[in-house]
Amino acid sequence: MLTRSTISPALAAELLATAHAMADAARSASLPHFRAAGLAADNKLSAGFDPVTIADRDAETAMRAVLAERRPEDAILGEEHGVTEGQSGLTWVLDPIDGTRGFISGTPTWGVLIGLQDRDGPFYGIVDQPYIGERFEGGLGRALLTGPHGTIPLGAQPSGSLAQATLFTTFPEVGTEAERLAFERVRDRVRLTRYGMDCYAYALLAAGQVDLVIEAGLNAYDISAPIAVIEAAGGIVTDWQGGPVHEGGQVLAASSAGLHGAALKLLQPV
Amino acid sequence: MLTRSTISPALAAELLATAHAMADAARSASLPHFRAAGLAADNKLSAGFDPVTIADRDAETAMRAVLAERRPEDAILGEEHGVTEGQSGLTWVLDPIDGTRGFISGTPTWGVLIGLQDRDGPFYGIVDQPYIGERFEGGLGRALLTGPHGTIPLGAQPSGSLAQATLFTTFPEVGTEAERLAFERVRDRVRLTRYGMDCYAYALLAAGQVDLVIEAGLNAYDISAPIAVIEAAGGIVTDWQGGPVHEGGQVLAASSAGLHGAALKLLQPV
Repeated sequence: MLTRSTISPALAAELLATAHAMADAARSASLPHFRAAGLAADNKLSAGFDPVTIADRDAETAMRAVLAERRPEDAILGEEHGVTEGQSGLTWVLDPIDGTRGFISGTPTWGVLIGLQDRDGPFYGIVDQPYIGERFEGGLGRALLTGPHGTIPLGAQPSGSLAQATLFTTFPEVGTEAERLAFERVRDRVRLTRYGMDCYAYALLAAGQVDLVIEAGLNAYDISAPIAVIEAAGGIVTDWQGGPVHEGGQVLAASSAGLHGAALKLLQPV
Repeated sequence: MLTRSTISPALAAELLATAHAMADAARSASLPHFRAAGLAADNKLSAGFDPVTIADRDAETAMRAVLAERRPEDAILGEEHGVTEGQSGLTWVLDPIDGTRGFISGTPTWGVLIGLQDRDGPFYGIVDQPYIGERFEGGLGRALLTGPHGTIPLGAQPSGSLAQATLFTTFPEVGTEAERLAFERVRDRVRLTRYGMDCYAYALLAAGQVDLVIEAGLNAYDISAPIAVIEAAGGIVTDWQGGPVHEGGQVLAASSAGLHGAALKLLQPV
């Protein structure tokens, strides 16, 4: 069974090419549905129609077709089409459209998430924003953002205090009442809190723009790819107890060990 | 003194060319500062430095240079450099970077705002997002989005109920306590509320993706351009009493008269 430490350079190249082919396929499948209803008045005819479901399903199907051709021996866990068993020891964890509400609102902050895991969790990931044409990737020796203005290295901010930190989460409501209160203990200590970015917040942490992301109630497919990208960029992602979180739940992502520890302490009583 | 109704086709073409030259100049001036600190570790050296102030100032200076050359007879109201008197009857209202907090967090939802006003308020505007390369413009016979995937017409959603509406605002805190409570009366009636988009929310309303934007405490330069773009796309922008809001204050933008009326009623007691 393959693990991250038994992957040869040739296999690494194959896995990278596969991941990028999947992300390209998901771009082609999702983009035609983005902002498709509503931009022209006569699209109101399609009122009963759910563009997100179709875009989600099409994008995951497109990614699975790439895997069926190139890596049929690997397992798949996808949001839309569930689990496909594999024999290689590797699992692709797919969220074809992370940020459904952002997608249906026209905001360019949803993403295609592709995580690649061995038995210990994610070791490579892509967070792709098809509309902007931005691809954040980390692991297998890479930590890169390729976007409309070229390719640049990713790197989480190596230091900084809680009082100077920028915190992101998707909704001000953040999970249960107890989870919200825990979140607010951190929020009350940071310089700036922003909302509404979905997976894009994790990508910005890897890009050194954001210091903390705190969320609750995530699924494995929401967080697998962000973990790999952030870890490759030097950041830390755990649950609110400091343990592994690639199977989902309460997520704390931080740009440095110091910030991670400080935020963890404030979240702890939950 | 010029007004929107006395602008000849030749002058309209000149004004459009001027506005686009300004937006191009602001792109060139602001983009080098976006995500400039933090992406590479050695940029931490620049820790005492405020990229937004510099980007703001440079972008407004660049736009003013275009006006000095092409339209020296027009007045200017800019966030950074204040008021310049004019003789033509026209005023350019400039916010070189709307969404400072988004800018410093690396989110691609800040914008360059250019409004063109006569004595009655804005009649042409540009909302430009330099990183994505998206330009929303409305007025002088246009309602267009030019972006990375081509040029498409803008059009606010012509109908829809409050129960089906998508509402945006920048911060869950929304102004004073009374303003926040008024906002929450609308929030509690809509299908989906999203946060954190700054001027981009107004652009998405003009693009038919968002139904309502409600904010408080805006300045003239925050709202002049969005008013022109939204009105050109068939939407409505007023204050919370239903009056003109191009001088700033509490803003209600709606995609249709029905939604505008329903939201206004809920905001009214303030």
